[in-house]
Formats: sequence, C-alpha cells, structure tokens
Amino acid sequence: MKARITITLKPGVLDPQGKAIEGALHALGFGGVDDVRQGKYIEVEIGESDPDRAKAEVERMCEELLANTVIENYSYELEAA
Amino acid sequence: MKARITITLKPGVLDPQGKAIEGALHALGFGGVDDVRQGKYIEVEIGESDPDRAKAEVERMCEELLANTVIENYSYELEAA
Repeated sequence: MKARITITLKPGVLDPQGKAIEGALHALGFGGVDDVRQGKYIEVEIGESDPDRAKAEVERMCEELLANTVIENYSYELEAA
Repeated sequence: MKARITITLKPGVLDPQGKAIEGALHALGFGGVDDVRQGKYIEVEIGESDPDRAKAEVERMCEELLANTVIENYSYELEAA
C-alpha cells in the first residue's frame, strides 16, 4: 500500500520557516498573504496489503520517527499501491 | 481562502532525505518499507475570496517561489477560509 503522510506544526507553535516564506511572498508582491505554515509531506510504499495492518504500521512510523508528537500533528491517507 | 500546497520531487530525481528516512525506518524494524519520498506541505491564507483569482495567485506563488519547477512538482487544494 502507499501512505501519503502530512506532518504539520500544532497551532500556537512558532513557525520560523513559515514566517520566512510569508516575508518572501510579501517581498514578491503577494500582499494578500496573511499567514503561512510549512510542514512535511512524506510518501511511503509499504509491502503490506491488509489495510488495518498498514494503518497500524503507518501510525507507529509517525509516532516513533516521522513526527515529533510534542509539537507536531500528523495525518495520512492510505491507498492500494 | 486557504491553500493547501504539496510540493514533491519529480520521479527520477534523487531524494537523499527520503533515503535517510527509509534507512531509519528499516533500523527501527519497519522491514516492509520499500520506498520513501519526502516533500513539503505549505498552508497559505490568502485574502482573496474569488476562487479563480486565488487559483491564479497560488500558481504564481508556486512558480515564482515555493517550488523549484525544474526538479519539483506542485499540487494544491483551495478552500474557503
């Protein structure tokens, strides 16, 4: 199966990268930009065909490595590869 | 409106970060992981309510700053803020 994982900073956590992008967009003339938040997008091919087992594996990957769950949230979509 | 932008490396472009994550997942015992690709996920609040104008603005942001279109693809979703 293929997992599409999105990892974002929790609301309230300072996002210096987002601020830097926001400043650059304003400098390029995108005056209407109010807020920018940057996160990670990770695609993982898993050699597991059972959706429930694949789901459990993705969540364990996020909890153990991919996301810092103190300051980050994660969400994911699973699809047949 | 709110734009949810996903930026990924084009197929065939070497992804050292993805390889590093893949190695770390294997080291943690996730043997079933075949391939990992890492990209960026960016949320942008745009002070534009007209969907067509917001669409044009997001594409311009991606083309001019957010994505390196030589090696990266971008996709996005727009929703009312």
